[in-house]
Amino acid sequence: MLLEKITSLQNSRVKRLVQLQSRSSERLHAGVFVVEGVRELERCSAAGLEIEEVYFCPNILPELPTLACNNIYEVTLPVYDKIAYRGGTEGVVGVVRTRYLDLTDLEMGGNPLIVVLESVEKPGNLGAVLRSADAASATAVIVCDPLTDLYNPNLVRSSTGAIFSVPCVACSSEECIAFLKQHGVTILTAQLQDSHLYYDTPMTGPTAIVMGTEATGLTEVWRHAADAHIRIPMQGTVDSLNVSVSAAILLYEAVRQRHTH
Amino acid sequence: MLLEKITSLQNSRVKRLVQLQSRSSERLHAGVFVVEGVRELERCSAAGLEIEEVYFCPNILPELPTLACNNIYEVTLPVYDKIAYRGGTEGVVGVVRTRYLDLTDLEMGGNPLIVVLESVEKPGNLGAVLRSADAASATAVIVCDPLTDLYNPNLVRSSTGAIFSVPCVACSSEECIAFLKQHGVTILTAQLQDSHLYYDTPMTGPTAIVMGTEATGLTEVWRHAADAHIRIPMQGTVDSLNVSVSAAILLYEAVRQRHTH
Repeated sequence: MLLEKITSLQNSRVKRLVQLQSRSSERLHAGVFVVEGVRELERCSAAGLEIEEVYFCPNILPELPTLACNNIYEVTLPVYDKIAYRGGTEGVVGVVRTRYLDLTDLEMGGNPLIVVLESVEKPGNLGAVLRSADAASATAVIVCDPLTDLYNPNLVRSSTGAIFSVPCVACSSEECIAFLKQHGVTILTAQLQDSHLYYDTPMTGPTAIVMGTEATGLTEVWRHAADAHIRIPMQGTVDSLNVSVSAAILLYEAVRQRHTH
Repeated sequence: MLLEKITSLQNSRVKRLVQLQSRSSERLHAGVFVVEGVRELERCSAAGLEIEEVYFCPNILPELPTLACNNIYEVTLPVYDKIAYRGGTEGVVGVVRTRYLDLTDLEMGGNPLIVVLESVEKPGNLGAVLRSADAASATAVIVCDPLTDLYNPNLVRSSTGAIFSVPCVACSSEECIAFLKQHGVTILTAQLQDSHLYYDTPMTGPTAIVMGTEATGLTEVWRHAADAHIRIPMQGTVDSLNVSVSAAILLYEAVRQRHTH
């Protein structure tokens, strides 16, 4: 139902949307985040997330498709330019209720394939890892001691919607290690020292691929918890790969092994 | 040799550096580009590229290491902030002479592994592909009908120096296909239609992995030229991977096959 047409940049809803985009403390406090795009909002609904409000701009999106939300606002082009994150061109943004999963929410049946990221700093990198994890049908992405919040707009965007489809949990490294061991998941840490080539390492059983930051790598707690250390061979002059690229190479090696096994 | 201390934002050298960073036409016209960072400049020298001028800021980099360049300028912090691309923190930028390779410059001995990108649009993506190509010790990256220039600052940065170590050639698709066929290189095009799973496809011989844009995929000329069509299975809800992620998965499958063959 169309509730209101917003034409003023000074409207309190406009100000709130801008705050929600720019400040993680606002998102945390309100328990909501902002999503741009019809397809992205449809994915939110499909994932069972509640869309609380929708703002659309008829100049960009003449006809708003049916979305699972009754609180719909029409906005002018200048208002849309202000509420859409970084030059958005979709014509629709929604305010969506966040949902934080716990480790106990993860479905660990079948043959789990899990990505663990320790202290990932850049939201764009985490989003890119989620995209690869979705493509490889990973069971979950677990972020240990995260330095970014899961509903950062850069993360949502770079995940191309995978933040809604791949279960993502934030917890401490100790909690994560206990959880993985309890479920009999083999812990493979990506590191250069004392490591095996990743493609010589079996990943056909329950497997967690654990990666640290590009700058400092993994902490000792993970190195000790590992069942095996694995490395991607660096055969040229660069000394590392982007974390989302490394995650994709390792995840798809698991996909390959499970396919051909 | 220290030639001058530059303190004014209006200095003509400062203006030229800003232009070289922001305009590909300026780079093309002058035949130079701008590189930030000690390590990056050392890689330029190692790759045989000529560093024409060096600008360093003692406030950030108190002692300038020896670089293969005699034209050294000291700059103040405000000047450095202006000449360093996007909030650079390295304390040194250099003006480096560009070098454009032809297909005939490529060394096709041994067992070549080549990445071909058709019409890649985003410089950051091309840089990220170069980084993965370096790590996988690919023979070359060939860019067909490029929409970006090879010395775009975003490309240089996202390649983390691989633009200096991996031979990169720009040419037309027709030239590239003729070249690959002449050298007996198997052409594998990444596409969803009529394709085999990439890990079921042999890559142990001379191989070119060909990828199109994320938006429109490959053109007909490449589909027809292909010896085989390959795909990375998309097992979740997202419908594609970032081109640099796809390139890395495919390149490392070739690395794996060549290692275990």
